[in-house]
Amino acid sequence: MTIKNRQWILARRPVGEIRDGDLLLRTTSLPVVGPGELLVRAHYLSLDPTNRIWMSDIDQYMEPVMLDTPMRGIVSGEVVGSGVPTFKLGDTVMGLGSWSDYCHGPAGNFSPMPAYPGLSPKDVFGQLCVVAPTAYFGLVDIGAPKVGETLVVSGAAGAVGSIVGQLGKALGCRVVGIAGGSEKCRWIVDELDFDIALDYKEGGLDAALRQACPQGVDIYFDNVGGETLNTVMGLTNLYGRIIECGLISTYNADCKVAGPSNYARIVMKRLKVQGFIVLDYAARYPEAYRAFTQLHAQGRMKWRCHELVGLEGAAEAVRLLYQGQNNGKLLIKVV
Amino acid sequence: MTIKNRQWILARRPVGEIRDGDLLLRTTSLPVVGPGELLVRAHYLSLDPTNRIWMSDIDQYMEPVMLDTPMRGIVSGEVVGSGVPTFKLGDTVMGLGSWSDYCHGPAGNFSPMPAYPGLSPKDVFGQLCVVAPTAYFGLVDIGAPKVGETLVVSGAAGAVGSIVGQLGKALGCRVVGIAGGSEKCRWIVDELDFDIALDYKEGGLDAALRQACPQGVDIYFDNVGGETLNTVMGLTNLYGRIIECGLISTYNADCKVAGPSNYARIVMKRLKVQGFIVLDYAARYPEAYRAFTQLHAQGRMKWRCHELVGLEGAAEAVRLLYQGQNNGKLLIKVV
Repeated sequence: MTIKNRQWILARRPVGEIRDGDLLLRTTSLPVVGPGELLVRAHYLSLDPTNRIWMSDIDQYMEPVMLDTPMRGIVSGEVVGSGVPTFKLGDTVMGLGSWSDYCHGPAGNFSPMPAYPGLSPKDVFGQLCVVAPTAYFGLVDIGAPKVGETLVVSGAAGAVGSIVGQLGKALGCRVVGIAGGSEKCRWIVDELDFDIALDYKEGGLDAALRQACPQGVDIYFDNVGGETLNTVMGLTNLYGRIIECGLISTYNADCKVAGPSNYARIVMKRLKVQGFIVLDYAARYPEAYRAFTQLHAQGRMKWRCHELVGLEGAAEAVRLLYQGQNNGKLLIKVV
Repeated sequence: MTIKNRQWILARRPVGEIRDGDLLLRTTSLPVVGPGELLVRAHYLSLDPTNRIWMSDIDQYMEPVMLDTPMRGIVSGEVVGSGVPTFKLGDTVMGLGSWSDYCHGPAGNFSPMPAYPGLSPKDVFGQLCVVAPTAYFGLVDIGAPKVGETLVVSGAAGAVGSIVGQLGKALGCRVVGIAGGSEKCRWIVDELDFDIALDYKEGGLDAALRQACPQGVDIYFDNVGGETLNTVMGLTNLYGRIIECGLISTYNADCKVAGPSNYARIVMKRLKVQGFIVLDYAARYPEAYRAFTQLHAQGRMKWRCHELVGLEGAAEAVRLLYQGQNNGKLLIKVV
């Protein structure tokens, strides 16, 4: 029996929003696993805003995905072929794979999946491995929050933003979340204990934010960029920190987007604005896992997982992120 | 005999460029020196781009100068009235005073002027006290230069930029300066040992900078903002640092200026962009003095002082900074 391997191929670089035909699902046979390589049967595929960046050929933080090759993605799964002594068949792993039933690549792209009592494999992958380190190192290392400071988070009901807000509360900050729609706003205040939620779709964000932050903004965890970034930047305090995690509002732009007109505030308020990528913190991930699981054990860390079933839906699903239509971490159950 | 005190008053907040009538020279009598206060006979007045910020009422890093009060300025001079035991008549001091023959204010605004063999009082004030710490702490603390890295400096023939470049060379960087006009460009390469100078007035800065920085840009010491900032930001390397010292190209704008369209590079290249003000480093100034004087003693630290005589010329003189017509540190000899 020949095992079939479905995989999404990047057929064309998207211009603006991802459209039908940018990615194509094809079926191939399984490759031979060479020395130093792994073959991983994918269980879950994480869909993340950064996928859109990888599809483009702008100068970015890693190589863009090459045309006519499998789309890159973060996956969890089981080792079904190993060319290294450090992984054996049946091991559960996670890492940088592709949008495929079977992911094939250098063993160095994968690491053993941690196990935590009380967390499902899906949550260990999606929440603990993918989301928690991004939220934790961005907020703690770059943001350096102090008790009593005001933390503003955009994309606040999203996978990363919702964890950032809860970490901020645990660290003693006053947390203001910006999200799209009343349901998301209700969720982050009622369930996640954010102090205030602002619905950017209602308009008037500048005035609402001024009212929500009478002491100004000490830390801004930015997931969206664009006009929201500019508005928050305009309210930053002396020595404010802006954590540049993502700029989802601009990734679909097919031309140059003007930077924030409040940029001069970086000088006036001695701000630090810093971009980061969680992979740089790989050696310290257990620190993030610990913070996350401890808060979870205390009932102070909650999340939503937006799970879709079937690899065939991946191209359609990733668009949800850009329409704000996902509720929490977006995962594809591959099988 | 009544001693007359000339002082420049901020009569009106400038709109765009500073115009006649924004500042007015008036003559008053000397104030009574109260407890905790000093009266300082000004010797030198430092004119700096930041003066233009202080004249405006935008939200900034200190209080704006109030209308109908003396214009704030960094001065050196001699104590002629003291309401504190720590300063006695005849002491030479420097600090935040005003554009006046006699500066009157809290003693905490002033500090004793250091003396260095081989440096004139003018250079101790202008170069060592005002310029060197700004160049040093911006470059060393925020920029964290490493041997072999490429450092780009704008305003490279200016007071701060020219020192930054020489510090960068001493720290093992490849230094590319951006300045306006061929004379300035020649000076920083021939006299100050910059590796390359680019004349932004010639146009085509993007292509010229790409050629001058084949390994990309690791550190950008920004004195000008605007399109130059955007161009350099577009060439930054992974983990690049942008030191936001000033945005002189934008201070005269009478409307909002768009931020750099290459802003997304902060995420893509994990940049750190940080504003600072040298006053935050006051406790560490001797460290900057030491670096500066050691290099000076080795013949590796040079500068130009643009000295004008007479307090009455201050309002006209500060405009030189905005026209790029000063050659080096701009000082008014007050007497």
